Amino acid sequence: MKLYDFSLAPSPRRVRMFIAEKGIEIPSVQINTRERQQFSDEYRAVNPNCVVPTLVLDDGTCLGESVAICRYLEEIHPEPPLMGRGARDKAIVEMWSRQAEFEGYLAAAETLRNSAPMFEDRGLPGVPGGVPQIPALVERGRQTMGRLFPKLDLQLAANRFLAGEAFTIADITAYVAIDFAGRAEIRIPVDCPNLARWFAEVGERPSAAV
Amino acid sequence: MKLYDFSLAPSPRRVRMFIAEKGIEIPSVQINTRERQQFSDEYRAVNPNCVVPTLVLDDGTCLGESVAICRYLEEIHPEPPLMGRGARDKAIVEMWSRQAEFEGYLAAAETLRNSAPMFEDRGLPGVPGGVPQIPALVERGRQTMGRLFPKLDLQLAANRFLAGEAFTIADITAYVAIDFAGRAEIRIPVDCPNLARWFAEVGERPSAAV
Repeated sequence: MKLYDFSLAPSPRRVRMFIAEKGIEIPSVQINTRERQQFSDEYRAVNPNCVVPTLVLDDGTCLGESVAICRYLEEIHPEPPLMGRGARDKAIVEMWSRQAEFEGYLAAAETLRNSAPMFEDRGLPGVPGGVPQIPALVERGRQTMGRLFPKLDLQLAANRFLAGEAFTIADITAYVAIDFAGRAEIRIPVDCPNLARWFAEVGERPSAAV
Repeated sequence: MKLYDFSLAPSPRRVRMFIAEKGIEIPSVQINTRERQQFSDEYRAVNPNCVVPTLVLDDGTCLGESVAICRYLEEIHPEPPLMGRGARDKAIVEMWSRQAEFEGYLAAAETLRNSAPMFEDRGLPGVPGGVPQIPALVERGRQTMGRLFPKLDLQLAANRFLAGEAFTIADITAYVAIDFAGRAEIRIPVDCPNLARWFAEVGERPSAAV
């Protein structure tokens, strides 16, 4: 297997954390999206969507989507389970993972991509000709995260991790999203102490440093 | 089990198609989001995110997310598999399902929610106080779908369904998204004959009528 990665981008970071939690090692290649390497002919042949990460399997199959890569790794390396064990738990992990993704990860990306100068004309990823920024999305993304924080806090008041007592991909997605949002000065509010406790705890895991 | 559903909304339609393909029956209750029933105290106790659908399990667990509901049903009713069989296939289904969701379903929703008068002040779902429409998103969503169509067409030139020879949740998501986009007059372009063939074929399945 080979992972196409970029160490400074949040999306491949989710996959790197997942791999680290599994305790496996996969050779990787850097695709520097700040230098537009994702639009090269070589990379486009690997992933026509021009986004990172991509995992290339030994049979040549290209998995060009973070959660699809995690799903594959979960199947071939089931321990420790990061996507739940049993029907109910798998569904609960999926629910929190998607909540963290839609209201967290996508909202953080919305805020950053539509404001930061480095994303000028890159309002969406993977479009060679560029996509104009929409300034109104900056505040909307910020407000979406503002609504998410107390929901996560409430869940973490009664649970060690988002989907219960076990660390899962839902924690990875939420952690990477909140850390990424910090680049736009979005912080966990002071009235969310359970979320702050969880964020500090996840940040101390070795996987958070990869 | 009990499904909170709304027959006119696309998100619960994904779950209804999934249930019909599994050949199972689940009692359901209508939550009319056009009449703001998702914001009632009763429903908020079931799903604090104030969106439909929600599946309530016999032990009281509330799964308030379409794909989480499908994941649960896939686990307890594995036949026919709609989320893949084996590590590689599961990952490929996940990849196409997410592509259909991010560039199809979310883009269609973006276009409709930010233009249609019925969505005035409902730019995002599930927010009791409302979210203003952002007119610039109408064209952006349309362009995103315009980029998706040829990708799906290319995949369907070589495959009967999006993830290969078997019908899966990826087809459900893409079909519901494209059908939903029709409300904004977004149509499959004439230079995508494989996609048109697939769309007609999926539309003839009994599950497309539920």
